[in-house]
Formats: sequence, structure tokens, C-alpha cells
Amino acid sequence: MSLNHNLRIDPDRLWNSLMEMAQIGGTPKGGCNRQALTPEDAQGRALFMTWCEQAGMRVSVDALGSMFARLEGTDDLPPVLVGSHLDTQPTGGKFDGVLGVLAGLELVRALADAGLRTRRPIEIVNWTNEEGCRFTPVMLGSGVFAGVYTIESALDARDASGVRLGDELARMGHSCAPSTGGRDIGAYVELHIEQGPILEDEGCDIGFVTGGQGHRWYDGIVRGFEAHAGTTPMGSRRDALLAAARFTTALNEIALRHGPEGVATIGHLEVSPNSRNVIAGEVKLSVDIRHPRLDALAAMDEEARAAFAACVASCRAEGALTCVSTCDPVAFDEAVLDIVRAETAALGLRGRDIVSGAGHDAFHMAKITPTAMIFTPCVDGVSHNETEAISKEWAQAGADVLMRTVLALAQRP
Amino acid sequence: MSLNHNLRIDPDRLWNSLMEMAQIGGTPKGGCNRQALTPEDAQGRALFMTWCEQAGMRVSVDALGSMFARLEGTDDLPPVLVGSHLDTQPTGGKFDGVLGVLAGLELVRALADAGLRTRRPIEIVNWTNEEGCRFTPVMLGSGVFAGVYTIESALDARDASGVRLGDELARMGHSCAPSTGGRDIGAYVELHIEQGPILEDEGCDIGFVTGGQGHRWYDGIVRGFEAHAGTTPMGSRRDALLAAARFTTALNEIALRHGPEGVATIGHLEVSPNSRNVIAGEVKLSVDIRHPRLDALAAMDEEARAAFAACVASCRAEGALTCVSTCDPVAFDEAVLDIVRAETAALGLRGRDIVSGAGHDAFHMAKITPTAMIFTPCVDGVSHNETEAISKEWAQAGADVLMRTVLALAQRP
Repeated sequence: MSLNHNLRIDPDRLWNSLMEMAQIGGTPKGGCNRQALTPEDAQGRALFMTWCEQAGMRVSVDALGSMFARLEGTDDLPPVLVGSHLDTQPTGGKFDGVLGVLAGLELVRALADAGLRTRRPIEIVNWTNEEGCRFTPVMLGSGVFAGVYTIESALDARDASGVRLGDELARMGHSCAPSTGGRDIGAYVELHIEQGPILEDEGCDIGFVTGGQGHRWYDGIVRGFEAHAGTTPMGSRRDALLAAARFTTALNEIALRHGPEGVATIGHLEVSPNSRNVIAGEVKLSVDIRHPRLDALAAMDEEARAAFAACVASCRAEGALTCVSTCDPVAFDEAVLDIVRAETAALGLRGRDIVSGAGHDAFHMAKITPTAMIFTPCVDGVSHNETEAISKEWAQAGADVLMRTVLALAQRP
Repeated sequence: MSLNHNLRIDPDRLWNSLMEMAQIGGTPKGGCNRQALTPEDAQGRALFMTWCEQAGMRVSVDALGSMFARLEGTDDLPPVLVGSHLDTQPTGGKFDGVLGVLAGLELVRALADAGLRTRRPIEIVNWTNEEGCRFTPVMLGSGVFAGVYTIESALDARDASGVRLGDELARMGHSCAPSTGGRDIGAYVELHIEQGPILEDEGCDIGFVTGGQGHRWYDGIVRGFEAHAGTTPMGSRRDALLAAARFTTALNEIALRHGPEGVATIGHLEVSPNSRNVIAGEVKLSVDIRHPRLDALAAMDEEARAAFAACVASCRAEGALTCVSTCDPVAFDEAVLDIVRAETAALGLRGRDIVSGAGHDAFHMAKITPTAMIFTPCVDGVSHNETEAISKEWAQAGADVLMRTVLALAQRP
């Protein structure tokens, strides 16, 4: 099954490609702002396409703009898909998503250098709009590919200023296919930075991602009553911000009770009228609850909804939570994971099982093909931050494990 | 000392004047947008000047644009000053400030109808920029009059779009005097809506305002660390919004401990980056603490600063509070208040002592002359809101008490 056990990726070439891509949308603090389907994203896509063609691949673009760079195999078999995303958060880093795409490119470059060819085709994919910061929902390209969303609804997604995703795609000048997905995929492997501190803390090179947390996302609204901050006695108030604050602390306690695996966050909060001497009449907030086990996720969800109702009532306010996204925990393919574990050991690297706290395109792909993810450590677990960082050695280790896993999968009959 | 104990204001004339003034800058929801020195304010001032001249008064304008309509007395004595302000919040009501000015006008009209003349002159004042929503600080005209601010600094105040107060004043075409204040005032009386629910709740017609709360205002900043909401374990977080939420609930508890007189509010809160799946890296917030007693105010202030430090530390965040405004409690003149109490009783009205939660021009005037305020109830305690409302009977009762108090003061040798 093995092609060449001495084959390694070129860590300098991989690193240089990462740094070159990071200049597109580069921010003063060393991060990236290359949000989906912006001019910066278009520039990143063009560079990726050039590199893929130089490496002997043919690039096609599906109905949502997701790019597939294909290296033909010797046999007429479904391809092994490898990839992630090139889009970033507005104040994102250089590696989140990008590492997975460019490590895929690098493994094809290494194969080409060695003059090797696999039985199955290999496709490197750049999924459109993974981050979800410009268009909702997150992981849109892979979601449509896996049949979770329709093409029409995805093309109709609008950003905060009302720009339609389909129109941005047309403006970009890609020659998009009319459809996406609906074809047989042999396996999907995604290399990604951990975005958490566990691997670094434990001195591991590689995370064997056994699955992903499920999540429940809500938009909340609290309606109190605007009143004068100086003249309204405490007992007469209906303070929407106080209700939101009580809920924020209650949600934190719920997550701690379900720790260490459970997490819960209020990351977005908007106060109205947001004036120093007016008691808040309305607060909008987001709720993000995650757990890797479905039963615990359901318990956290129920406790959070009860706490919200109690906090709102305690301030004589009114409120509602609207579910905007729900995702049950995902389990990845044990056979693919066993290859990842074996190749990590064969390379003399140190790995451990880990659960993904973030959502990834692999979550959708797991619905339609044997799927696994490989994590590399990142400094202090920081991501979605311009200071996000990894070492060249971590990138090398992750890309080598990815390559050898893909080669093993691509040699399967 | 008394002139005519049967003299009453004309409630219909007062009400009609209030309604006519409310049409200037009138909003669709029945409120007013007549911010200081805007074209709407200029129109309101012109109408007020016309009315004053028709009532036999001579109107002068000081260096800040504050208007003084003077009815001469029989003796050469310092005048009794009566008034409030005609400017409003952007979504303000019809009565906040306006009632005090037009009740002053009405009492002069009633005197004229009865052919009566007081020993002391009576001046009705419309203070410039009381609301503070266009130019900072609030209560600017009275503050300069009382020597709290210099004329130069006040003329240099700028609105949010950079327009200078002095330039707006010049554009308005008032023939402004070069100076303000610095002259002997016999007493100052201001009628105002309560802007709180106490008088209505207790079925009182009149509030004897014994003084004003002191306040401490802070701008706060909490700095945590932006991180991924899915991948960052609860124990690794430095959540700036959680720290702010804990402080919000702690501040509420401090106010309740110092109740019923103490109040504390966080009305403004801004989260960064304010994204659903990013732990807040920074939160800015306002802190508003008020109490009518200096010792209690100081205690609340100290407890709030300690709570802020503790809440920030509990989230391993950093933070700072910057004092942006401080005002010690104000006590009004007991001799003037005794007249208000006596005249309320003489009219068969029900009154009670009350402390002002909001700031008023009378706070500045108390520094330079015997001063008191008279409150009328307002519906549900609502103000700074287009739905602000009072009954014609409340307006009548307040204006009658104001008139009789002013007459008593204006007969003093």
C-alpha cells in the first residue's frame, strides 16, 4: 500500500507559501483580514489557483465557489479529498484554515517532485465561507456540498451591508459550475490548528481528532423599560442590561458545572439606547453552548434556557431566545483515524486523541464520506486573533502526517 | 406680605402655551426634538420672546444665550428668578424644562391680568443647553451664570459634528450681552416634572425638593483576551464581558444595600470584537452612582471601585475606571422650601419632601442665591422619552404653587 516511506514534505516551501498567502489581507498586527468573497479573498484564490496549476493540478469551482484542485490517479476511483479554507475572520490569523489548504498543496508538490502517482485522484479543496463572519451560516460551502443546505439558499445569503453571496461570486469572475457535491468521495482529511491549548500544554505534535463538539446557538433579546438613571428607584426598574448581566454570569456557572468539556459564551451584546444616564430598555445578545456529548449538551441547553427566563423575570423584563444554529456532536471515522495514529507513530511524533471545540468543514463531510481531522498545536491556544501563531516544526509535522495519511487512503482499492 | 390670596394662574392658557411650544420640533410619537441652539430651539426662543413681550416684560440675553424676561418691581431690589429650560433631548417630551419656563410666563400673565405689581422684579429665565445632549456639559448656561464654568470654555463647547456653541449662538442672531451672572439675585425657584414615579405613586400633587443627589460618573474599560469560544476551556479564559457582567450585578447589589435613596446604573456598554463565537477581548462601560447624602455616596463609590477591581481580577482581566463627572449632593434653602410647603397647604394640595434624582439648573443657582425646586408628578415617572406626560391638573397645581411662592419671595424687603 505504501508509496515511499521516506517521502517528506518540504517544510520551507510550505512555510514560505503560508507567509506569502498571509500577505494578502495582512493586518498591521501580523494577522489576516481575508473575509469570504472580498477582493482580498479573490486575490488569495487566484494565488492558490496559480500554485495548483503549477503543481500539475486542474482546478474546478463548484456552484458556491469552493475550489477543487485535482491530481489525477492511476485508477478510475473516487478521489481522496484534502483541504480546509482560505477565508479568515476580520482580525484573524495566518494559519486557521490556510494550513490545511496549503499542506494539501504541499503534499501534491512533494509527490510531483518524487515523480509519484497514487491509485486514487487527490483533490485539494478550498471551501467557500467557512468562517461565517461575513455570510451566515458558517461552513457554507461544505454544507451545500454535503447536502445540508440548498444552493439557492446559500447564494441568497447576505452580508451585514446586504450584499448577496451569489452576486459577490459573480463579481469575482470564477467560472462556477451549476452544481456541487452529489459525487462519490473516497475519504476526506482536514489538517487544522487546534485553536485550543491542549496539545501545546501536553507537548504533543499531533491531535487525532475523534470528533467535534455539538453546539446550540441562540440570539437573545431582553426588553426592559428605558428610564432616567437618576430618578428611577432601584425597585421600580426594569433594567434589560442587568437581566443580561445576570444571565451572563449564570451561563458561565452552567458551563463550569459541565466542565471541563462544556463551554458557553456570550460574545455579542448590544445595549439600547446605550446612554450613560438611561436605564437600558433593550439588550440583544448571542448565546453559544458547546459540549462533545449529546446528553450533556442537551442538559446545558435546558439549564441555559431556564436561567435566561429566570434572570429576565428577576428584572421584571421580557425576553426570548431564538435558536439560530444547532449541531449535534460529530464522530469521525475510526479507520481513517487509525491511519493517522499509525503514521504519527511511524514518523516518531507524539500524538493524542482530542475533540474539536470549533466547527470545521469536516463536520459536514463526515455525513457523506469517511472523514477525520488532524490537529497541530498553536501557541497558547490562541486563534481568531491576529497574534495566532504556530512553529514551522508543528506545520511540518502536521503536513507530513497529512501527506502519509492521504497517500495511504489514496492507495486503497 | 401677601398680594392677593385668591390669585390663580389660568390652567387653560398655560396648557395651550405648553401645547403650542410642543409643536416646535414635535416628533411623530408626540414628543419633542428641540436640542440646544438648533433651528427648532431658535424657533422656540422666538415664540417665548414674543409671549414675554406681550406680557409686558423686557427680554435680555446673556453671553451664553440664556434669556431673562424681566417684569419690573416697585422697589429697587434684586429680582426673584424663576425658570428652567426650553431645550429637549433628541427624543424628549413636552414638559421636561418647558413647564418651568412657561409656568413662569403664566404667573406674570396672571399678575398682569390682576393689575398687580410686586416689590421685587421677577425674571423668567430660559437657560441655554440644560440637557447636555448636544453640547457638554449639561446645565451649561446656569453653570456659567453661577461662575462654575468660564464663558470662554462654554462658547468653545462643540457638538458631535464639531459645531462650536459660540458659532451657533452667533448664527441665531440673538443680541447677546458680553457677560453673564455677577449680579445680585434675591432667590431662584424652578418648577419641574419629577422624572420619577414617587409623587404619582403616593398621590401627591407637589414635591418639595429638599435637594439633589450627588453623583459619581465613571468610564470603565475591561481588557481580557480575544479567543475562540469553542476551543478555549472555561479555565483558560480571560472574558472581558463576563467581568463586566459580574460588575453589573455587583453594582446593582451595592445600590440595593444603600437603598432606597441610592441608585446605580450601567447604561452604556460596548463589547469588542462583539462576535458570537469570540470571547470578548474588551468591554467599555459607563458607571453612574447617585445618593442624596455625601457619606453614603462616598461609601457607594468606594464599594463600586472595589467591586470593579474584584470582578476584573476574578476573570484574570485588567481594567480601569476613569472619573468623568462628580457632583456632591445639593441642599436647597429651607426658608424658600417653607414657603413652598405653606403655599401648597394653603391651596389644599398634597405635597411631600423629595430629593431630585436628575440634575437641574437650580443645582448651580443654589451656589449663589437661596434656591428651591418644586416638582409635579409625571405619568409612570417617565421622562427623556417621547411618551412623557402630565395632566393639566398637575400643571395647574405646580404653577399655582410656583406663583404664590414667587409672589411671597418678591414681596420680601
